[in-house]
Amino acid sequence: MENCDNLYHENLPNICQIVKNRSKKCCEHATCKQFLPIISWLPKYNVQFLLADFVAGLTVGLTAIPQAIAYASIAGLPTQFGLYSAFMGCFVYIVFGTCKDITVGPTAIMALMVQAHVTGSSDYAVLTCFLSGCVIFLLGIFNLGVLVRFISIPVTTGFTTAAAITIASGQVNNLFGIKSSSNEFIESWVNFFGHITETRRNDAILGIATLVLLLLMMKIKDLPLSCKMLTKYISLSRNALAVIVGIVLCYCLSHDGWLPFRASGEITKGIPPFKPPPFSTTVNGTKVTFGEMVTDLGASLASIPLISILESIAIAKAFSKGKIVDASQEMVALGLCNILSSFFSSMPITGSFTRTSINHSSGVKTPLGGAVTGALVLMALAFLTTTFSYIPKATLAAIIISAMIFMVEYERIIEIWRSKKMDVIPFSVTALVCLFWSLEYGMVCGIFVNAIFILYKSARPKILISLEKVNSVPLGLVQVQENLCYSSAEYLKSKVVKFVTTQGDNSIKMIIIKGDEITNIDSTVGLNILSLKEDLSLLECSLICWNWNYDAAGVICRLHPKERSMFKFGKSISEIVAEVAYNMTQTEIVDVPEDS
Amino acid sequence: MENCDNLYHENLPNICQIVKNRSKKCCEHATCKQFLPIISWLPKYNVQFLLADFVAGLTVGLTAIPQAIAYASIAGLPTQFGLYSAFMGCFVYIVFGTCKDITVGPTAIMALMVQAHVTGSSDYAVLTCFLSGCVIFLLGIFNLGVLVRFISIPVTTGFTTAAAITIASGQVNNLFGIKSSSNEFIESWVNFFGHITETRRNDAILGIATLVLLLLMMKIKDLPLSCKMLTKYISLSRNALAVIVGIVLCYCLSHDGWLPFRASGEITKGIPPFKPPPFSTTVNGTKVTFGEMVTDLGASLASIPLISILESIAIAKAFSKGKIVDASQEMVALGLCNILSSFFSSMPITGSFTRTSINHSSGVKTPLGGAVTGALVLMALAFLTTTFSYIPKATLAAIIISAMIFMVEYERIIEIWRSKKMDVIPFSVTALVCLFWSLEYGMVCGIFVNAIFILYKSARPKILISLEKVNSVPLGLVQVQENLCYSSAEYLKSKVVKFVTTQGDNSIKMIIIKGDEITNIDSTVGLNILSLKEDLSLLECSLICWNWNYDAAGVICRLHPKERSMFKFGKSISEIVAEVAYNMTQTEIVDVPEDS
Repeated sequence: MENCDNLYHENLPNICQIVKNRSKKCCEHATCKQFLPIISWLPKYNVQFLLADFVAGLTVGLTAIPQAIAYASIAGLPTQFGLYSAFMGCFVYIVFGTCKDITVGPTAIMALMVQAHVTGSSDYAVLTCFLSGCVIFLLGIFNLGVLVRFISIPVTTGFTTAAAITIASGQVNNLFGIKSSSNEFIESWVNFFGHITETRRNDAILGIATLVLLLLMMKIKDLPLSCKMLTKYISLSRNALAVIVGIVLCYCLSHDGWLPFRASGEITKGIPPFKPPPFSTTVNGTKVTFGEMVTDLGASLASIPLISILESIAIAKAFSKGKIVDASQEMVALGLCNILSSFFSSMPITGSFTRTSINHSSGVKTPLGGAVTGALVLMALAFLTTTFSYIPKATLAAIIISAMIFMVEYERIIEIWRSKKMDVIPFSVTALVCLFWSLEYGMVCGIFVNAIFILYKSARPKILISLEKVNSVPLGLVQVQENLCYSSAEYLKSKVVKFVTTQGDNSIKMIIIKGDEITNIDSTVGLNILSLKEDLSLLECSLICWNWNYDAAGVICRLHPKERSMFKFGKSISEIVAEVAYNMTQTEIVDVPEDS
Repeated sequence: MENCDNLYHENLPNICQIVKNRSKKCCEHATCKQFLPIISWLPKYNVQFLLADFVAGLTVGLTAIPQAIAYASIAGLPTQFGLYSAFMGCFVYIVFGTCKDITVGPTAIMALMVQAHVTGSSDYAVLTCFLSGCVIFLLGIFNLGVLVRFISIPVTTGFTTAAAITIASGQVNNLFGIKSSSNEFIESWVNFFGHITETRRNDAILGIATLVLLLLMMKIKDLPLSCKMLTKYISLSRNALAVIVGIVLCYCLSHDGWLPFRASGEITKGIPPFKPPPFSTTVNGTKVTFGEMVTDLGASLASIPLISILESIAIAKAFSKGKIVDASQEMVALGLCNILSSFFSSMPITGSFTRTSINHSSGVKTPLGGAVTGALVLMALAFLTTTFSYIPKATLAAIIISAMIFMVEYERIIEIWRSKKMDVIPFSVTALVCLFWSLEYGMVCGIFVNAIFILYKSARPKILISLEKVNSVPLGLVQVQENLCYSSAEYLKSKVVKFVTTQGDNSIKMIIIKGDEITNIDSTVGLNILSLKEDLSLLECSLICWNWNYDAAGVICRLHPKERSMFKFGKSISEIVAEVAYNMTQTEIVDVPEDS
């Protein structure tokens, strides 16, 4: 009772102190180690690690190259941009990354999300890479990775499912050698069925055969064969094998400039020059300023970083094996990967699930494996671009489709349905909006619909009101079982008033609100409780707040200091009833002659 | 333990049953009485009531007419539209309204909100009235008035403050006889200071004198004078008096068509024809279809109904004196007022605070008082339009400004600041966005910022983890003090893992999550708890969920039926520890040779 100063003065956090503490922490050695995880593992590096990392890096590289080329086509960019995006992330992540398995580079979803903006110029993709890198970096620095928590599993599942279906649909035309300019779900199928007569036999045969073989090779490692090691490596390098077979077929069957399949075509040779990302560009001869480019990118500058973080952190968690993932540091690393990558004309990049799992199953020991992958991509750019121009589009389509088939989380969808029917709503909203409108808005709608669940619950906290008789005074005992906030303020008020009025005229003399679970309230709740007190006094019922903590009680006391008497601390209910009943008789003695 | 079927089958509400019950309820007499409140009070009506209602209705009417004309000018509509909006609401509310004091009609905020859309044609205002009436009606029918609960008091205060400042600012030009075409906050003041030299002496003198007198008359009733009754009626009829004085001055000083003040000008005479609201219109000779009109109105079709409900329900609550306001019925009434009013070319209407308080203080007994008000407005339209064309604009400006000065809730702002500093954030966001961008977006931003408070809290529930020693087994006892939802799923997981890892290697053998306050979880929480179990098992720690209720436990059991053993019901902690420790030794006997 003595230390109730904060009933009249609000306890606020001292911002100066917080800033001081934070800045002090920045200069410590532990923080340095946290920011540069390479310091922790590099001193312990040995030859055994080097061998393991080399083999893993090589295996990942053989998948990274065909995937990079395929994702460039999803993004609608010239083929070399895929490879431009695939090396810098690998190098940067070695220094800043915390998870040994993660491989950062172009992914199908990132490619699809950037695709909408590159119609004018590839500069948009590079600028998106730079800006989303900055956003991710800042979110990481300010520890705002918690935002990702508001993307629930049903929403994530809906998003991945829709993205996989969209991406696979976009490649169906290429699989059959049909020309198509769109990567959208509906448009792709409309184009496919509209031009099905234009199917090219060679492409279709190659595409379908490759797809079937890829799926078989993926499953080969699960078969009970004797040579486990061989089947494992065949399974891991299946994408590289498909590309090599495609190139060899295309090259051998070609004559006099005629190609048997529609191929990737010319790839600009050489390592991209190191230059700052384009802060203005030219579309159809018109100059577009930085401001206009940002306006064009719009909501993508929020959704691309978010999806990027989500993909990367989800992978880090999947491969962390019980260790806590330092989400903020992962975001810092991912941000820097994007920022530096954009200086080499990259599109937005993030952790790739396929390549990360290949990395893991190839037995990588440290993030240094990424150096081998990066070097391999650079070598491909320097020496193999002519070779890659022979990659049949149907082969790439088969590689993408086979990856997407396994990206749809069928089991997860069934799990959600089985465990909680309500969660099917955010899932379906996300999936449908993603499929039929756009990926960004699907994500936003899903998050919004799911947030409504939280808000709805906040508006209907569990409130128990029981009728008690203490010292033969009938009273209502109110137990609020969750925290009160502005959305539940009126609910509490109407529930109490309804209780009092349904008990019959003036039969309830007192309402006691127990404060056990009320840790804090806002001014709306405070004002509503004051107005509840007034309403109750018209019904000749008094309101007592019993054992509220000082933070919550303070809000009301500071609103109307004279209402301090409403709060009772420490006493038992019967003591309170006796006290209030005595006060009531005192005032009644004065009032009685006038009232009745 | 026996009745745990719902661990494997989700209990879902039977929708058919709900619909049946609802539709059955619709046909009952009580529901009829609820939907037509007039049934309750009309049979008890008597002559005494009639007299009181007549006096009150007359007094309100004398304020309603000048206000209606003033608000038409705020909305940028021809003067007669103000009067068109002022009668139908009064009549409809008699039948469907639950609160005897409320007067439905045009208000300053509604006028300002519709103003942005009437630049092309007044048809937009009438269509807005009809459509927002439909929205309000439907929200009422489906009992969605709870939506208003998400508009907290700081947001409401910010909105009213900004609206009052904007409306008053828009009238400053008229007060000084300066021409102005805008009602926006900044533009009005820019126009005022840019054209201050064009101030018309006559208008400025009349305007300022009227404003001063109105403010004095408002205060006159608080003075300790002897003739209470007279001062009260002077105070109540001050707006009507100001208009009469203005008209008389303007008429007497005019000669040969020259007017001493800028006046309202021509008002179309007669009662508006009964016709359906315009579902298409013509702007500058171009036909605008219904679809295009709706697109033009955009977000207003959500914000106007919401503000309309908010104003009306807030007033109903203020005048209900402790009785519970049937918000849904109020919304049904308000929706019908708007729908029917739109058939007489009305702009959107809602409960007016000024007129409702005049109604109340004039001693109205039943909603029938509205009939007198409505009749008075109709008579004004039929016979007095020529007279009203002499109303000086400066007089109307003074009436509006004097009303707005009292609409700013200075005390409320101070209260919010004093009681809860955090609540100043939604207040300021709402007020600033309303002032400098637009009223609709201000409201939306305020609601959004305030919802972040709830969401943030949901992501960080209070979780207490204590180190206990039961049967000499060290274990962590987790108490979740609020409900778990998807946003808090990872927080719980990381908190438990951090606890286990910071306690030193393998020192914690078991984590027990108490289920006392966990009433329900979603699939994201379920999946995170399963992944927490896996992570902990890598740290050689087992996870037990103790005394969870079946709803919450069922979500996890349905995800992975074999995890059923994780849940312990009823037993004491020491029994559980003994059981789990026994199982662990059993498995360890098998595992030990391989592990160490």
